Amino acid sequence: MADQSLFPAPVGPGDLEESSALTPKFDADGLVTCVATDAASGDVLMVAHMNAEALAKTIATGEAWYFSRSRHALWKKGETSGHVQRVVEMRIDCDQDAVWIKVEQVTAACHTGRRSCFYRVVPLGVSATKTGEMKLEFRDERVFDPKAAYRKD
Amino acid sequence: MADQSLFPAPVGPGDLEESSALTPKFDADGLVTCVATDAASGDVLMVAHMNAEALAKTIATGEAWYFSRSRHALWKKGETSGHVQRVVEMRIDCDQDAVWIKVEQVTAACHTGRRSCFYRVVPLGVSATKTGEMKLEFRDERVFDPKAAYRKD
Repeated sequence: MADQSLFPAPVGPGDLEESSALTPKFDADGLVTCVATDAASGDVLMVAHMNAEALAKTIATGEAWYFSRSRHALWKKGETSGHVQRVVEMRIDCDQDAVWIKVEQVTAACHTGRRSCFYRVVPLGVSATKTGEMKLEFRDERVFDPKAAYRKD
Repeated sequence: MADQSLFPAPVGPGDLEESSALTPKFDADGLVTCVATDAASGDVLMVAHMNAEALAKTIATGEAWYFSRSRHALWKKGETSGHVQRVVEMRIDCDQDAVWIKVEQVTAACHTGRRSCFYRVVPLGVSATKTGEMKLEFRDERVFDPKAAYRKD
């Protein structure tokens, strides 16, 4: 687990919500949730996680760092693909367990090649069990070829 | 844990990413992350969680339902305060463990009285250990009195 002493520990709920101190409430795995939106369009680009080190690096450098739960590793967004995120503004939520970053996204956020990871619409007003009617609609085209962007040269 | 059989189980990663089947990837606690944005302004209003039942109810009714991790209970947004969220569009991300809903928010999303839970800005370009410089800036005023909205009559 990352060094959470990079940030002061939260005190009570009132302190979390009405304080001007950044005291992130990391979960049992040492993570907070991060939502990245496109600073220009407002679209949600991706949802990922940050440990204390990723959060501290993002704040210090103004570029987005995350923690990969599957690879169990600190990760700079775009370190392989070049698709970095420059953070224009960071906000933290009431109970300090989620951050919102507005970013300037180079090329695209999603490893599948789309601008946003949220490229499929879920139909509303249908029962989840009616799988015939429950068809996701693809909305976003690929803007890069993921095979080329992530190949190991 | 909720009945995850409300939705088909995911198969492989390629299936998750390029399929038109909704096969949410619930975590060990049976949850997916949900980001709610304001359909008009694009602002992120809140980040919360949905279990299978909350997700199914949100899809079926077009109003936001969540699962409270602290209260361990299904919860309709606004059931006490009246501050419901009408879902204009729902999207799901590449690996189907997060949903994004664009909502028409009645009054405000945050229980502290602000429109959004993300009412504080985190300064950038500073070291997290420099607590003197690491001051959150409050940006959003309260739009309702939380004591009045949540009192038990």
